[in-house]
Amino acid sequence: MPKSATLRLENFLPYLVNRVGVALVERYSREGLKAHKLTIDMWRVLAALADNGGQRQIDLAAATSIETSTVSRLVTRLVRLGLVTRGRSETSSREVIVALSATGRALVKKLAPVALRLEREAASGLSPKEVKLLKVMLRRIYRNLAAPKRRR
Amino acid sequence: MPKSATLRLENFLPYLVNRVGVALVERYSREGLKAHKLTIDMWRVLAALADNGGQRQIDLAAATSIETSTVSRLVTRLVRLGLVTRGRSETSSREVIVALSATGRALVKKLAPVALRLEREAASGLSPKEVKLLKVMLRRIYRNLAAPKRRR
Repeated sequence: MPKSATLRLENFLPYLVNRVGVALVERYSREGLKAHKLTIDMWRVLAALADNGGQRQIDLAAATSIETSTVSRLVTRLVRLGLVTRGRSETSSREVIVALSATGRALVKKLAPVALRLEREAASGLSPKEVKLLKVMLRRIYRNLAAPKRRR
Repeated sequence: MPKSATLRLENFLPYLVNRVGVALVERYSREGLKAHKLTIDMWRVLAALADNGGQRQIDLAAATSIETSTVSRLVTRLVRLGLVTRGRSETSSREVIVALSATGRALVKKLAPVALRLEREAASGLSPKEVKLLKVMLRRIYRNLAAPKRRR
């Protein structure tokens, strides 16, 4: 068996990415979301709406990497909590647009500094140039993986 | 409101990490795990056992970033599938050690090349030096986040 087929987790990119992702979610849940009884997925929907404005559920699914059926359930919960609204699109009356309510907007404003502080803490010890390169690489990797490509 | 408190997802490290993590899981589930009816968490347990040898469930939880109670359920499923065994430790008879069975070991050997091919595809366009730096940075970020630290 070739050497290249052994998997050393400490040097395996998907492992390193997952570990950082889980740690970020744990810290942010504990330090930001818990006090507002939000789950990480609810937060992702709110943050995507704050970032990109009102949008269709299918766009929210793409923006958050959450499955469309799950996004739909999350939006229903967020509507009940008064954090988002579902309304008709101005351009097409058959299109449903999800948007932040004033309460939702205020909540994102309150939580964003916690998220940004955690990002700074995560990157401590890295130079601004390294952080920039890291982000460039992560965007590139995402494009590499998400590109529609047939299986061999 | 200070400019630093707005959250642009395209430039927000936790967002970029999560997006890559989800894409990796989706691709690997589809291209590797599905054919063997494994979930990503089952795979993580198997890979950690292949990498670190037999270990206690609490060590498996740390190695996989999966909660201990979930690890326990996963191990039970993997035992039923004949992929891992639960046995007594040689040093302490009260300690339960989880290990790969021969079937489990063979399955990891079969799947590792798929995982490694996906890693290569993810990193395509990055130089070996960049990939190395990326891994160094991800390890550093994990340490920054996982270090026991009191909330302010």
